[in-house]
Parts: sequence; structure tokens; C-alpha cells
Amino acid sequence: MDGRNLIGHQYSALADDILNSFSPAMQTVLQGDFPIATKEEIDQAFALATQATRQYRRVSGAAKAKFLRQIAEEIMALGDVLIERARQESALPEGRLKGERGRTVNQLRLFADLVEEGSWVEAVIDQAIPDRKPFPRADIRRMSVSIGPVVVFTASNFPLAFSTAGGDTASALAAGNPVIVKAHESHLGTNALVAAAIQQAAQKTGMPEGVFSSLNGTGPELGQALVRHPQAKAIAFTGSYRAGKAIFDSANQRPEPIPVFAEMGSINPVLLLPQALQERGTAVAQQYAQSVTLGVGQFCTNPGLLIAQDGPELTTFTQALTESISAIAPATMLNQGICDNYQKNRQQLLDLAEVSLEANVALAEKGTGQATVASVTAATFLQQPSLQEEVFGPFTLLVKCKDQAEMTAVVEALQGQLTATVIAEEGELQTRVDLLDALQERVGRVLLNGVPTGVEVSPAMHHGGPFPATSNARFTSVGTGAIQRFVRPLTLQNWSADLLPPELQDANPLGIWRMVNGQWGKE
Amino acid sequence: MDGRNLIGHQYSALADDILNSFSPAMQTVLQGDFPIATKEEIDQAFALATQATRQYRRVSGAAKAKFLRQIAEEIMALGDVLIERARQESALPEGRLKGERGRTVNQLRLFADLVEEGSWVEAVIDQAIPDRKPFPRADIRRMSVSIGPVVVFTASNFPLAFSTAGGDTASALAAGNPVIVKAHESHLGTNALVAAAIQQAAQKTGMPEGVFSSLNGTGPELGQALVRHPQAKAIAFTGSYRAGKAIFDSANQRPEPIPVFAEMGSINPVLLLPQALQERGTAVAQQYAQSVTLGVGQFCTNPGLLIAQDGPELTTFTQALTESISAIAPATMLNQGICDNYQKNRQQLLDLAEVSLEANVALAEKGTGQATVASVTAATFLQQPSLQEEVFGPFTLLVKCKDQAEMTAVVEALQGQLTATVIAEEGELQTRVDLLDALQERVGRVLLNGVPTGVEVSPAMHHGGPFPATSNARFTSVGTGAIQRFVRPLTLQNWSADLLPPELQDANPLGIWRMVNGQWGKE
Repeated sequence: MDGRNLIGHQYSALADDILNSFSPAMQTVLQGDFPIATKEEIDQAFALATQATRQYRRVSGAAKAKFLRQIAEEIMALGDVLIERARQESALPEGRLKGERGRTVNQLRLFADLVEEGSWVEAVIDQAIPDRKPFPRADIRRMSVSIGPVVVFTASNFPLAFSTAGGDTASALAAGNPVIVKAHESHLGTNALVAAAIQQAAQKTGMPEGVFSSLNGTGPELGQALVRHPQAKAIAFTGSYRAGKAIFDSANQRPEPIPVFAEMGSINPVLLLPQALQERGTAVAQQYAQSVTLGVGQFCTNPGLLIAQDGPELTTFTQALTESISAIAPATMLNQGICDNYQKNRQQLLDLAEVSLEANVALAEKGTGQATVASVTAATFLQQPSLQEEVFGPFTLLVKCKDQAEMTAVVEALQGQLTATVIAEEGELQTRVDLLDALQERVGRVLLNGVPTGVEVSPAMHHGGPFPATSNARFTSVGTGAIQRFVRPLTLQNWSADLLPPELQDANPLGIWRMVNGQWGKE
Repeated sequence: MDGRNLIGHQYSALADDILNSFSPAMQTVLQGDFPIATKEEIDQAFALATQATRQYRRVSGAAKAKFLRQIAEEIMALGDVLIERARQESALPEGRLKGERGRTVNQLRLFADLVEEGSWVEAVIDQAIPDRKPFPRADIRRMSVSIGPVVVFTASNFPLAFSTAGGDTASALAAGNPVIVKAHESHLGTNALVAAAIQQAAQKTGMPEGVFSSLNGTGPELGQALVRHPQAKAIAFTGSYRAGKAIFDSANQRPEPIPVFAEMGSINPVLLLPQALQERGTAVAQQYAQSVTLGVGQFCTNPGLLIAQDGPELTTFTQALTESISAIAPATMLNQGICDNYQKNRQQLLDLAEVSLEANVALAEKGTGQATVASVTAATFLQQPSLQEEVFGPFTLLVKCKDQAEMTAVVEALQGQLTATVIAEEGELQTRVDLLDALQERVGRVLLNGVPTGVEVSPAMHHGGPFPATSNARFTSVGTGAIQRFVRPLTLQNWSADLLPPELQDANPLGIWRMVNGQWGKE
């Protein structure tokens, strides 16, 4: 493992300042020095990336697919070394990390398939109509094209699947853009291993140098330098609201504003309707306890808010939830900063006179997060918007409504969310269309009778809710649709046939789906 | 014509302050009082629009199509009254306005066809795979949904096609969103007539009240109040960079930032390659003169920059251009503000020592704009970025390059543009791939051997270039793609079959194109 900055095909360490990563479980500094990227190194990475942009946009879908699949191969070839380093740096268990690695290589292969097939560029052709009255129609052809260097912020909670070679990098590379990754301070070694794998794959498949670089540094310094760099063309981020909003603001205040796709905080409300509460409250409580504590609650889709009607059934439900939660041992959180924030935010909420503690797993060791259920009345929740702030970790707030109208009022007061879940019996929804309407207006994904954790990587997935859940509700960061974040349409009018890209040639040599003169087809 | 604010189905005039419109050709105040919208009236329009959102999103594509076609009918039924008022307010000739009305009603019908057909929602269905290992796949279905009240700023230069019932309104309504229009101070009467037509159509086709409102006021006051209103969900704007950037900044600084689709300034460079210059310079000069002066140069796609290699052929070309331009009589501009700005910006440029006046049509009357050709060397152009600022009107700047390398350097220095045009002979482009690459990276549409004015309304059109040409290069404001600005994806997971919208039902009752389990089709 080489901890230096990886700029194109070269390692670089111009600064004396180094970062180290830390084991949250062992509470020790881990082996490996990671020199911070200097301004000169940042400029060099962007210069190479900008230079690579023009060559890389000419690389065929088939060749990009080979590159992406080779990245997957190289990651798998790292074997247990990668899993062990990620485990040390994140305190996530081996099984989870192996699963996450599977998700990561599957994502790379999914985008490989997508660009190999080729229809994702949304080619549209309007052929010329020279004899149209009063004016002839010119030949007009449009497709999606790449935009240039994309900055990817790696995420603390997914050291593999939302990091160095995660969904953001995979989709940006698939779309034809060079990527500059900001390594996460919590998993610098994992990043170094995966960055080397990407670089190896780029060299083996003949990609232009600069198609990928990886830099070390802190969020406020390196992060802001990357966002403000004149050659950056888009930003992908997964993390806290505070950091995401700071990036969004910086990017919009640039002389040339650039798009930011930031997935920020979400409390992913779960609505428990009366009949379901009555008929299967205990089963729901057990399933819910698992979802709240999965990965020590460190998922963007963690259910942080449970909304239900008060009464004897809710008391029984809460008892079952308390029991289930209490049986789950506290586990080490991703890093000390996240753990400290969890303890602080959790305590701040519990200190409020109106908030009751329902279930609390005793704290075991330094660095761990105890699962917690608290509750408030709907009236309080409606009065205090700060109760909607995410407590990142295994925490959930139960909002007790006195009736169904109050339940709707709570939903109408919610901020934008990634997901919402409705737990209901068959036939129970049909009379609550008002509630479903209010919910759908506030989220990117609604689920019936499930848990929000576990985000399928598939064409129909949408992982992107209204602000503040994300900075751009139009785009998803999970699933094949994620590629659309890193392209823009380009129209060629009256273009020379021999200069048209294959996607727009009359003969459709790639055999992709296109709209020609208003008709979809592969002709 | 009723000049009051139109809020839902009611007229309202709470303020004493009124606006009037002015005839730039006659230099007189026109008949009609237009009371400024008060805060109360703005709130009322948003309250109605928000209320209408939920009802209107349930309106079928077929019913929305009826509404849009009825708007077209009502506009045509206004007959000459509309054309005459628009002529008085804009000084645009009758023929042009009739053409623009045709474009306006065609756009409404185009979006009617689009939503009636229905595939535009991009439905994607991943059916459940209960026996998948290691985890089952849930049933996941996605489609585009409306976002809520859209604020439309009407444009000075298209009193019909980019105004009250123009492309922004048509696409926002087609997407299922209520629209609140800010009337343009230059054509308040035209706006009042068209707003009444929309309101009539809404009532006749049974649309919810609040699906459309029209308010009078000034840009800085009413405009900013609309952008900052908590219930506004998106902004559409066509106009100057200064106004567009102010809107963009305000929208991003809101507690809940909202998307702005602002089409701002563009100088639409035209590259004249040597062989074409040599072989058909005179013909190109004549065509170019027509494009520069079309509509007194008041088009967003007006060619404001001509880039060519210096030499005897360019001298001949410039003489031909000068002759053609001099033959075109100056005409009245859209309003006094635009005319004053034109004179000021034009003079400021001509006052620079390095800028030469090549052709100048003598100024005839107050309120008119004289066609002007100026020139600079490429060296000067490269040193002074301010030479890229748009001079809105019949103005073009010729950049004289000493060789082809300097021509590429000029293109590499260009800001984002709506369009770029290349004038070249067959075979001349194949050796200039560097130039084409540089051009394509900077624009939303490139044309070969044509003029940028005249933007086809069709599926393949992309009217949206990199910043500062627009605030969002991912979306078009012309053509069917414009509807995508006003929707976001929503995913329904494990949803109840009887609650699925028709677009996502297994039986595909609307017969739309969908992707089901990764395959496109209408099954």
C-alpha cells in the first residue's frame, strides 16, 4: 500500500504534512503515512484530468466497459488485504465489508454493461425536411456528452461502495469523465489500495493518464480547494448536511457555478398505520429494531422517525421495540468524530423536557453507539422543527399522534427525505390518500411494508429526495440513472455525416435505442 | 383586456400603484392600467397554486392535453387584437408576431401530444425477485412526477413564444405543475390578453383553480418576491445575464434552494474556415448580415462574434458584410431600456482603442438600433475577456486571427455559449478536429454551414449551453425535452397494485414506452 497522492500514473508527496488513519475499535493509529496534497499537486491532477477529458470522451463504450470491469478485477485481486484494512479503519465487520465489496464490483460491472449497450446516451434524431413550409427543417441530432473532471468525495459510512471506486466514481467514469477522488480521512489506507487498483486498470486497458487521481487532505482544506478549482466540472458527495451544504454553497458562488450532487441528511420517516399496528405490532417492532441498528445506524436510509397513533397498541409496540433494541449490543461506530457527534446530538435531544427516553442500550466501550428510542408528542414535534435534525447513528424518535389528522399534520411538516415507509394492512391505504400524497411530495422513494435500509442498485431505483435530503432531487446516486448526473446534452445541426459519432449515424452501427423522427426504435 | 392581476379565476387589484406599457415606436403610453401585485396577492396566488398542485398531478395526460390545446384555441380566438397589442408594445412587425403566435400554439399542441402519448414520464419497472440470493429483490417502480408551483418570467424579446403561454408555461403545465407568471413590464397588455386566454381554457376544461396566475410588477421587486417565496418550487427565466444571475443567486440562497432554469447571455460564435471564406465569402457575408439584424438582433442566438483568419479574403468578406449591413434600415428595438443599453454597450466597445468600426448604419430615430460590425485582433480579444460580454442588439464583433492556431486559441478562451456555428467547405473540418472539440465543450448546439438564429422546436433540439449561457446546461428550454425541467423521479417500492398510477401498472393501460426488468418496450 502506497499512501502518497496518486496523480495520473505517478505517486507524489510534495508536502511534509501527513495524515494517518485510526482504528476506532483498537483506538490506535494504523500503519501508513498519507501526505497531504499541495496546491501544486491539486493543479497537476486537474491539468492531467482536463487533458484526459478530450481523449477519454473518444473512448468507445466497449473500451470503457473493459476499463470498469478491470477495476472490478483489480479490487477483487486485492483479496483479504483490502477487507482487513477496511475493517481496521471502519470497525465494520468482515461479512458486511465483503458484501459491500460485492456491491462495489457489481456496480462497476453494471455501468460497464450500461455503456457497452450504449442506449444510455439518449440519442434523438430529427432528420431534415427540406421542403417543409414555411421554413425547411434542418437535420438535428442530440446525445449526451461528458462534462469534464468530476470531484468525488468518499463517504465515511461506505468505505468501498460509496467511496474510491464506488457508485459516484463508476458512474462518472462510465459517462466519460475523469475523476479526482478526495480520500476520506477515516479510511485512507482503504482508499490507497482501491486507488492503486483503479490506476492499474487504467494502465492495463490503455486509458489516458489523468483519467483518475486520488488526493489526501482534510475536508475544509482539500475539499474546498477541489470544489473551487476552475477546472472542476461537477461534484459528487455523500455525507452530512453541514459538509454537503458548504460544498453546495461554494460551488454556486464560483465565478462559473458547477453542479453539486450531494446526498446529505435524512431521517427517513416510517408511518405505522392503526390496523397494521394492531394486527402485527410486535413483528413490526422486531423488524424496525433491526433496521435502526443495522450498521450501528450509520446508513443514509436509517429510519430516524417513527410516526404512529397513540393508544394501548402503541404502548405494546413500544415495549416490543424496547425489548428488541435492548437485546442488540452496542457496536463500534465508524470513527471517533461520528461517535462524539452521535453522543452529543442524542444527549441534546434527550435533554429536552418534552422528549422521553423509551429504550436505551447501556454504553459499553469508548467509540461505540448505543441504540436509543425516544418519543415526543406530535404537538411538540410540530412546534420544534429542530426535532427533524438527523441524529446520525442507531437512534429513532417516535412521534405519538393523537389521531389520524395529527398524523397527516406531522407528515405535512416534514422536510425533504430520501425515503418514507408506510406500514399498513391491505385496504388501509385506500382511505388515506391524503397521507400518501403528502408523503410522496416530500421524498424520493416510498416503500410499503418494508424497511428503508437496503437500497437496490437497479434501473428503477431513485436515491435522491427533495432538499435537504439531497441538493438535487432530479438525480439519483444509486442505480443506472446515476450516470445522468455527469453528462449534458449536445445537439449537432446540419452536421457532416462523416463526423457524426456512431450513436448519431444514420446506420445506427451500435444498435442502440434511439428516437428518430419522433419514433423510438433500434432501426 | 383586464389589466389586473389574475389570481386563479379571479381578478385582483389591491394596490394603488400601477404600471403602464409604452409604445417604443410611437413613444407614447399605451391604454390600460396594470396594478402591481401586493404581498397579499402574491401569497394568494401561491396558496391557490399549492392547493392546485395535488389535484392537478392527478389530472390525466389526456385531460392536460385538452387543456393545452384549449389554450391554443383561446389564443387564436383573440385574433388581431392580440397581434395589434403585441405590435404596439414590442415594435415587432405583424408578420413576425403572427409567426411567433404560430410557434406558441404549435408548442402548446406539441406538449399536448407529448403528455397524451405519455412515455415522457420515463417509467422504469424492476419486478420483484423473491428467490434472489443472498437477498430477494423488492418490486421497484419509478416515474417522473410534478414538483409544484413554477414561476415563469416572461421574456422581452418573445412577447408570445417565450412569455405568458410560451415554452416555459407550456412545459411546466404539461409536466403537471401550476404556473405563476410574472408579466413583463414591456408587454403588460399582451400578457393580460394571453393570461385571460389561459384562465378561460382552465375553466372550460375543468382544471383546478390556481393552476395558473399572472402577476404585474417590476423585476427587482415582484421578481425577487416570487423567487424567494417558500412555496415556489422552480424558476424559468429568459433574459439578461445580470437579471438571470441575480435570480440564480437568490434561489440558491433560500433556506430551501430551488432549481433555476435561466437562459442568459450568449454571443454565439461563428467560425469561418479559410476554404469557405475563399470560395463563398460573399454569399456567407450576405447570409450573416441577415442573421445579425434579424429582429433587430434581439435573439438569444444572435451571432455576436465572428472568428476568421486575416488576409485579403477576409478584407473582401468584410467589405461584402459592410455593404449588406449598410443596406438594412435600423428598426425600433423592443423597449427604451434595451435600446439605451444597446447604445451604451456598443459605444463602450467602440471607444476602446483596439476596436475598429467596420460597418455602421447611421442612426435614424429614437428607439432604433443601428446594425454595427466592429473588429479586433485575436491578440486583443485574448487579452480582454470583457470583449466577450454580449451587446444585445444588431451587433457583431469580428475577431481577426493571424493563423489557424490563433483561431483555436480564441475558441479555447470562449465562455459557455448557447450555440456555435462553423462555416466550412466539405473536407475542411476533418483536419480541424481540435477546433471542433474545443467548440463542442463550450456550447449546447453546434451548427455546420447555417446561421444560429431560428431554433427548431423538436425532440432533438437542445437550447441550453454551459454557464454563463444558461444556469443549467443539462436542460433545454426549447423542444419537448423542456418538460424534464419541471419533474423529479419518484420510486415506489413494494407498492400496492391498486394504488399504482396507470404509468406503472403491470398491464400498461396507457400503452407507453417503459423499461421493464431492463428491457425497453410497450408490453
